[in-house]
Amino acid sequence: MAETTPDWIAADWGTSHLRLWLMSDTGRVLDRRSSDQGMGRLTRDGYAPVLNAALADVLPASGRLPVICCGMAGSRQGWAEAPYAAVPCAPPGAPQATRITCDHFDVHILPGIKQTAPADVMRGEETQIAGLLAATPGFDGIACLPGTHTKWAHLSAGEVVSFRTFMTGEMFALLSDQSVLRHSVQGPGWDDAAFDEAVSDAISTPANVAARLFGLRAAALLEGLSADTARARLSGLLIGMELAASRPYWLGQPVRIVGEDGIGAAYLRALQAQGAEVATTPAQDITLKGLTAAYAQLKDTTA
Amino acid sequence: MAETTPDWIAADWGTSHLRLWLMSDTGRVLDRRSSDQGMGRLTRDGYAPVLNAALADVLPASGRLPVICCGMAGSRQGWAEAPYAAVPCAPPGAPQATRITCDHFDVHILPGIKQTAPADVMRGEETQIAGLLAATPGFDGIACLPGTHTKWAHLSAGEVVSFRTFMTGEMFALLSDQSVLRHSVQGPGWDDAAFDEAVSDAISTPANVAARLFGLRAAALLEGLSADTARARLSGLLIGMELAASRPYWLGQPVRIVGEDGIGAAYLRALQAQGAEVATTPAQDITLKGLTAAYAQLKDTTA
Repeated sequence: MAETTPDWIAADWGTSHLRLWLMSDTGRVLDRRSSDQGMGRLTRDGYAPVLNAALADVLPASGRLPVICCGMAGSRQGWAEAPYAAVPCAPPGAPQATRITCDHFDVHILPGIKQTAPADVMRGEETQIAGLLAATPGFDGIACLPGTHTKWAHLSAGEVVSFRTFMTGEMFALLSDQSVLRHSVQGPGWDDAAFDEAVSDAISTPANVAARLFGLRAAALLEGLSADTARARLSGLLIGMELAASRPYWLGQPVRIVGEDGIGAAYLRALQAQGAEVATTPAQDITLKGLTAAYAQLKDTTA
Repeated sequence: MAETTPDWIAADWGTSHLRLWLMSDTGRVLDRRSSDQGMGRLTRDGYAPVLNAALADVLPASGRLPVICCGMAGSRQGWAEAPYAAVPCAPPGAPQATRITCDHFDVHILPGIKQTAPADVMRGEETQIAGLLAATPGFDGIACLPGTHTKWAHLSAGEVVSFRTFMTGEMFALLSDQSVLRHSVQGPGWDDAAFDEAVSDAISTPANVAARLFGLRAAALLEGLSADTARARLSGLLIGMELAASRPYWLGQPVRIVGEDGIGAAYLRALQAQGAEVATTPAQDITLKGLTAAYAQLKDTTA
């Protein structure tokens, strides 16, 4: 139960999850709610009922509550398509949003960003980038957003100039949970030295990654390689290959990694070992910062 | 029902399947049988009953039927461990087999092969290599055995000198069936030009593979890239990265690919484009040839 009726709702509506923040006009978070009713489980007419149910106790007596929404809810298979903006562009805000009015809500779905050559897309990360720019105004350089699909984005003068997506996180998950390596890499610990060596090898000779993957299994069978070392090595090989390919992004540019823990810390360590000029920004609420920036635009427009 | 009582049984007992050949002493195949009772579904005491059931109608009135068996049944988690032979070595035969007598059978389980540096193992493929050597006596060069885990083996004077395993087939399956790419690569056709371009790019710049994978999805979304082209490109990127890493094997050496169809044809095409001296050998019954060679050793021993 929220202590106060919110002035607006921030929504991060992804493939597998919905995250909601109940906000005051002054930017205070009154409450947080989440649900597993992601885009992947919903048909077009399922979105409004989910929102109604999640916010039933805070609906206004009259009028409509503004909702600023980012993520896969704006895809073609989502609630309503919010067509991609094309680079170079600032992260799309309220003026570019697709608007839906329904029941008690006035919903603004933020577009993603596309790039023609090479073909690439993002949907959701553009709002994290908006949050990063709101948190560090004037930042010119590279944003690295690690995750299932890690994004590297070149930011200049408040715009996304170019970006590139890597499936490193998804590959790591598939290989460590579902491939023959699953028998050899599942442990609670970590091995920094193994990670460092693997990153370095993969950056200098990316083809080695293909040759070394099965070796993790073989070394576990023949030498009793520990799961901690094997997992750190697997992570290092994949991140190293990504860094070899993303070198045009991080070389000689200030890099800001969104995310300090876990995967963010691994990218930080790998980039520092390469002498990159790199720092981290907390990932927590970075999306909220971006949604808040869009809400501010909305208020400016309607003021 | 077999027409004649077999003199011996050839068995390829892998993780997911059991394949049996009912053989005459002269090398004639009297019947073939198969079952899904692979190692993955069996405990140690489950193997003999499976064999009994599969061969119930051909059991000899007295005495025991020789069974020559290769594959994961010989692993530590299998029927009985057949410890790895170490390179350099000839493909292990009957004298190196682990022997089990049970009910109506006299079972000889062939060992796999291991390599210390770099750590690698094979179990089952050594018998395909024995079959290749039986089919092409005196072959000196490189055996390429494409599959879930593709093996490259340097053969000289009848011995496996060194080998290396690549998870290319498993990566392709995971990425095309379970990753975000599954939406973009599933089609019935193929695109040779896309395959060729991807192989060439991955061989010359392996790191590009990391950068180009998500691009398959993005190009499908933005440009309507066909599933056939996307799948051929994915295959080309992964095989190309493998060829970049396996270059020490195939460069300047005669290469014999085991398998003519599908994946074998893809490796052939990729290697020919690199100017490699490459030919194919039918994969069908290559394992049987290896098991037959081991049976001949057994007869020599017991003669």
